[in-house]
Amino acid sequence: MAPTSEILTAERILEATEDVLRRHGPAKATVVDVARALGVSHGSVYRHFRTKAALREAVTKRWLDRTSGELSGIAAGDGAPEARLRDWLAALFAAKRRKAGGDPELFATYSVLTGENGAAVGEHIADLTSQLTRIIQAGVETGDFAAADPQATARAVFQATGRFHDPSYAREWEEPGAEADFRAVVDLLVRGLRP
Amino acid sequence: MAPTSEILTAERILEATEDVLRRHGPAKATVVDVARALGVSHGSVYRHFRTKAALREAVTKRWLDRTSGELSGIAAGDGAPEARLRDWLAALFAAKRRKAGGDPELFATYSVLTGENGAAVGEHIADLTSQLTRIIQAGVETGDFAAADPQATARAVFQATGRFHDPSYAREWEEPGAEADFRAVVDLLVRGLRP
Repeated sequence: MAPTSEILTAERILEATEDVLRRHGPAKATVVDVARALGVSHGSVYRHFRTKAALREAVTKRWLDRTSGELSGIAAGDGAPEARLRDWLAALFAAKRRKAGGDPELFATYSVLTGENGAAVGEHIADLTSQLTRIIQAGVETGDFAAADPQATARAVFQATGRFHDPSYAREWEEPGAEADFRAVVDLLVRGLRP
Repeated sequence: MAPTSEILTAERILEATEDVLRRHGPAKATVVDVARALGVSHGSVYRHFRTKAALREAVTKRWLDRTSGELSGIAAGDGAPEARLRDWLAALFAAKRRKAGGDPELFATYSVLTGENGAAVGEHIADLTSQLTRIIQAGVETGDFAAADPQATARAVFQATGRFHDPSYAREWEEPGAEADFRAVVDLLVRGLRP
């Protein structure tokens, strides 16, 4: 079956775009390359994404959403808040490490794209911080945590663990001491959250 | 008095090097430029620094030492450990902000140099972490802090506050919320240090 006989969805375009970006690199990938990979005209792609910039933003958002999607289940869980917080931070670190180490070329590509799409990154951070807020709020309700302003505290926890999720630290993540460093920071923060 | 009549010290060479780096940029600055600025032969410069790389490393170390020198007085003080910790972290953030905002060209130059001189940066971080260890150790002795391994805890505090001293975050330091973010992270860490 020729690709053109399938329905051209935004998701299919985004998948093809990721593929094209991986192969051509973010500097060279064009909408024409994406259309060619799908066996459609570039006009068909533009019907879904009005500009090349909109397409790049959407594919960046999709990449970031994969991480927040993985984590949302932990945030929404009903386990003990402290364990949930530790699990959530460990899952965030693991997801980022996997992205950086598993497919370094794609990771480098998305590093360029996130640099271009500050708004998508801002939404992603807001999304993650709101998941963290939910966990901290739950801990305040059970009396496990003390936080006058759970949202501000969530922001502080997110920023204090930046070394373990901010892509600019990716090179440090495979250092021998990284796991111990992560645990020491999380332990200190969890102690700081207790009443 | 001609510059050549002064004694050519390592310090004078480093001062001139910083000046040349600022004017020419790190990519173009040469030992010949430094010698010319001092009115000496490049051989005289090489008698103090055997290679261009050694000169660049020494000027990087000097720049980093300026910050650790400013902070060492706080670490060695005898005020209450919690206040000393807060002062030290605030002074580190202030010193970095001043360097980044006060002379952005020189800061950009040194960002290139620190990238080249991993060993000098490693020593700088070890120096700062040992100052922090001293403060935390003092807190353990007075009973203000609990830390089974003050050195590991100091490392965790340093890493958890990275957003407020790692030059890769320099752009965030002038954001309106930066000061509040800093206080929230420090408050959480100080709570985590209490017994």
